[in-house]
Formats: sequence, structure tokens, C-alpha cells
Amino acid sequence: MEECLNEGQVSGDAEIGTAMTHFLKVCDYNVPHGKKNRGVSVVTSYKYLIVNPSDNELFKARVLGWCVEWLQAYFLVADDIMDHSVTRRGRPCWYKQDNIGMIAINDAFYLEAAIYKVLKKYFRQEKYYVDIMELFHETTLQTVIGQGLDLLTAEEEVVDFSKFSMSRYDAIVKWKTAFYSFYLPVALAMHMAGVQDDASFDKAKEILLEMGHFFQVQDDYLDCFGDPAVTGKIGTDIEDNKCGWLINQALILCSSTQRELLETHYACKDPASVKIVKELFVELDLKKRYRDYEEESYQKLMAKISSLSSPDLPKEMFISFAEKIFKRNK
Amino acid sequence: MEECLNEGQVSGDAEIGTAMTHFLKVCDYNVPHGKKNRGVSVVTSYKYLIVNPSDNELFKARVLGWCVEWLQAYFLVADDIMDHSVTRRGRPCWYKQDNIGMIAINDAFYLEAAIYKVLKKYFRQEKYYVDIMELFHETTLQTVIGQGLDLLTAEEEVVDFSKFSMSRYDAIVKWKTAFYSFYLPVALAMHMAGVQDDASFDKAKEILLEMGHFFQVQDDYLDCFGDPAVTGKIGTDIEDNKCGWLINQALILCSSTQRELLETHYACKDPASVKIVKELFVELDLKKRYRDYEEESYQKLMAKISSLSSPDLPKEMFISFAEKIFKRNK
Repeated sequence: MEECLNEGQVSGDAEIGTAMTHFLKVCDYNVPHGKKNRGVSVVTSYKYLIVNPSDNELFKARVLGWCVEWLQAYFLVADDIMDHSVTRRGRPCWYKQDNIGMIAINDAFYLEAAIYKVLKKYFRQEKYYVDIMELFHETTLQTVIGQGLDLLTAEEEVVDFSKFSMSRYDAIVKWKTAFYSFYLPVALAMHMAGVQDDASFDKAKEILLEMGHFFQVQDDYLDCFGDPAVTGKIGTDIEDNKCGWLINQALILCSSTQRELLETHYACKDPASVKIVKELFVELDLKKRYRDYEEESYQKLMAKISSLSSPDLPKEMFISFAEKIFKRNK
Repeated sequence: MEECLNEGQVSGDAEIGTAMTHFLKVCDYNVPHGKKNRGVSVVTSYKYLIVNPSDNELFKARVLGWCVEWLQAYFLVADDIMDHSVTRRGRPCWYKQDNIGMIAINDAFYLEAAIYKVLKKYFRQEKYYVDIMELFHETTLQTVIGQGLDLLTAEEEVVDFSKFSMSRYDAIVKWKTAFYSFYLPVALAMHMAGVQDDASFDKAKEILLEMGHFFQVQDDYLDCFGDPAVTGKIGTDIEDNKCGWLINQALILCSSTQRELLETHYACKDPASVKIVKELFVELDLKKRYRDYEEESYQKLMAKISSLSSPDLPKEMFISFAEKIFKRNK
């Protein structure tokens, strides 16, 4: 990480020293303090693809892993401003820090731009250099589209269930989260491992987007019904008017009276309102519906994984990924 | 432009239609309504480099020109938020539009991401594809660094002249403006024209950064002393606490009493304060100092251009550029 951070710098220019000192702080605050699941996925996937990789190749996989974390930092710094969030990863959001505020927008730009500086430094000579650049470009665009869709679907504090639907939910999850969190890390490892045929990438994408979908449904479920002592966070999706899995399921199942109740109490900060919504979710038996979805999704995924037969796509790579995600309680 | 706009879209995905309709508006509002000097520069430069270019090649040069305009839109949408600006190009800033606000940050991200979609579509097969991608990456990073330097040098309404200096000014101009406005368009045209040796790019950069510097000094001068009837805008650099050429010159030349006066009246919205600052600028004979700088800079540039001897760098390309900039009064 340290090494990567410094690579993100433009060296030797005293005239921009003030800015570079600032950007070092930006990276240090925003890149390395998450769970790093996405970054680690590049390395673990690579190890499944290549038996006995060299130290140099492993180092490169780690660099790509950090690039994914950098990309995530770019999105999160900006998302927190757009969502008016207060904390992130147990600390104040970057834009909430003293003397930062809207400068954080430019800081987010920096985080993204640094990725390509790092890619050029370490991968310029590789056959797959263009492929990984294009993959970062494409994934960035997909995530931006997903974030746009999310922002246009639910404004803070304006409840308009006419914009909600399961298909809208599925699209937001796929575009805003699944491409960059699930497909990107594995696809980067595949490029490093020399995989070239489009069919393999398409197949991996199909499986990983399914996994990403499950992950997000689970995240939404735990936000409401998880144990904060275990998850480490107190959910606020109901208060925040999120277009999440539970509300979309509820809207399918509810009576018109129940819908009115949801319209009144969804997106309210008042704990009494939140309690009413949660009770309604329980009344609609969403806990069971979630367990059924979980089981079904797991079976579907395993069937897809079992059907794999190419050495480009080792089953264990996907299974180990899936095992980390399914049946987690945090 | 229309064609390019549509290329920026991800086609065929009904599930993201809402977002794509929104992004079409984002492009339409923010990309095509400026002077388009930077975009046009790609095409005019290309015509100096290639005699009798084909229609197809000219079309491609125009696409690259639009990509430069797209990059600028990315910066401007964000800069306006960070500077709390109200109008841009004679209309409300994008983030000031109804129902936009902070979504504009994600919209800026989209504008940048669309560039690489367009590059892939039109240039993927070209030998210089990697070169132009890297050039956009590098220029973006440079501009972000320059914007960071600018933001860290002068907060709105906090006058701290200890951070101002001519060398700081020079660095901000070079990084924030000159790379993307002057070097980028010409370097893109050079790549298209098949120029490959680094020395030619370095030479072009040296000349174009000098031109960019002059352009910005002139812009600063006209902001204060230009005729609004001619320039079409009313300058607010003094009110806005800008680290501009005039204030930095004044800080070199002023007595301690005059400096106190500047400290009191710079960065004040009050017209009486602005008048005091302007009168002090006149008293310090900055109009003459500007004319001297203009003459000196022009001679320096012409000497550099005259010394050119490579067919990769036709003198006329630089001269026509310079003539557009020098002695302009708007």
C-alpha cells in the first residue's frame, strides 16, 4: 500500500508539493481502512488461476487489488457527499473533516486518476495492459450509471414508491455494486492469468453478478434484521428511504392498507416509525421469504458453478468466494 | 456532437433507461455550449500536420476534439460546486438546476467516463490508441493536481497572502489550465498524425505551456481591466480572493501600507472595496507591467517557434494558435 501510495504521486515537482502532501492524506484516510474484500479477491482469485505464482506476479496481483480499493475510495468519498452521510468505516466521512468540505470532490477525482498512474507504472509492458485499462474504464462507467439510477430512484425524504420495483432494485444492485465489487476483481485476475476468450469472461460475469445480487440482498436484510453486536453497524436503510430488497418485497405482498402505512412511515427518522415498518416486514413474513431466496440463490449458483468445465474458470475459485458470502451473519 | 453523445450511452439496456435519459441531459447541458476553442484546436492542429486529410480522419479529429470538451465539462461541473458558482456560460450552473444539486457530482463522473467509451469505439484499432488513453489519464491527473493546488492556496473569503506568490501562481496556471487547454489538443492531433518521438512532444509542450501561461495572465488582466461590453463578462476575481496575476504582481511591488490596504479590501464583495483594490493596481502601474509582460512573452514564444525545424512541428500550427491568443481583447 505504502509503495502504491507513493506511486500515485507525481515525483520531483517541488511546485506542486503542497497539493501532493494533501493528496497523500486523502489516500491514507480513504483507501486502506475498509475490509479490503474486493482487493483481496484479486489475489485469491489469481492464486486459484495460477499454480505456484512467482513473488513478482503476486506483487502485481496485490497492486491490482489496491487499484480496486482505490476505485472504491473514489466512489465512496463522492457517495458520502451525495448521501449527506456522516460516518464511514467508523470514522467521520472525509468531506466532514476540518478544512475539507467540497474539496473532497476534487480529492475523489484524484483517487481515480491515481489508478491509471499505478497501472502505467506496473503494467505498461504487459500484453493485458489495454484490457485492464478498458476494464477499469468500463466498470467505472457501469458503477456511475448504477449510482445515477439509485439517486434518481429515491431522493432523500421524498417517498415515491411508484419508482420502486424489484426490477429497478435488481438493476441498481447490478450496476452500482456487483460489477465493481464482484466481477472486476476476478476479471482482473483472469487477465493477469492470460485468459483471453470472451466466453470465459461472460461466464464468470454471469456467476459473479448473481453472487453480487445475493450479497446485496443479504446486506439489505442484515441492515434491518442483523444483530448490531455482530454486524458492527446500526442499519438506517428504512430511515434513509433506500430502494432495498425488503421494501420492494413488502410492496409486492402488502395490502392497500399496509401500503398506506408504509407510505406514512418509510423514510422517517422517528424510531417509532421505523418500528412500525419493521413490524410490518415481520408481519409480511419477509424473514422466511429471505431464507427461501437465500436457499434458492445458493442452489442456482452452485448449479452454475458445477456446470463449469474450463481450466480458465476453476470451480474452487467461485466456491471459495461463495462460501465467504453465504450464511455470513455480518 | 449528437453522434458522440449517443456513443457515450450504453445501448440496449432497458433497465438503466432512466439513468441514460438523465445522462443525455447532463451531456446536452454541459458539453456543447462553450466557445469550443479546445475542441476546435485538435482539428486545426491536425490540418497543419496532415496535408489533405481524408474525411474519415477529419471526423476522428473532431471526435477527439469533443472528448477534450467532455473532459472540460467534467472539470467545470465539479469546479462550479467547489467554488459555489452561480452561473456558467451565461446560464445557471448545472448543480443549481432543479432536482440536481449534489447529483451533479455523479454527473461529472459520467462525463469523464463517457470519454473512454468514445475512445474505445472510434480508436481501438489505431496504433496510437494506448497513447491517447494515457494522454487523457495524465492530463486529467495534472488538472486535478492543479485544481487541488488552487483550492489549497485560496479559500473563499479567507485572505492569507502568505500562500500567494508568483511561483505558486505559475504552478496553478500550468497544472490547472495549460496542460488540458493547450498541450492536450495539440498532442492529440500529433498522435493522430503519427508523431512518435518524445522530443517533439516535449518541444510542443514547452511552447504550449508558455502560451497557456500567457493566456491565463491575459485572462486575469481582462477580468479586472477588460471592457465588459467586449469580454461579455463582469470579472469577480478580486471579490473571489483569486490567486491571480495582478494581485501577485501587486504583492511584489507594494509598500507595507499598500499591503495592509490590500489585506483589508481583497476578497470583499463590497464594490467600494473592489474599487480601492483596482485603484491600487493602477497606482502600482500594473497596466504597463502587463503590456511589458505581454510583449516579452510574445517575443519569447516567437523565438521558440522560429527555432523549430522538424516537420512534426510545423511553425504555422503554433503561430496560428498564438495569433488567436495574443492581442485579443476578449
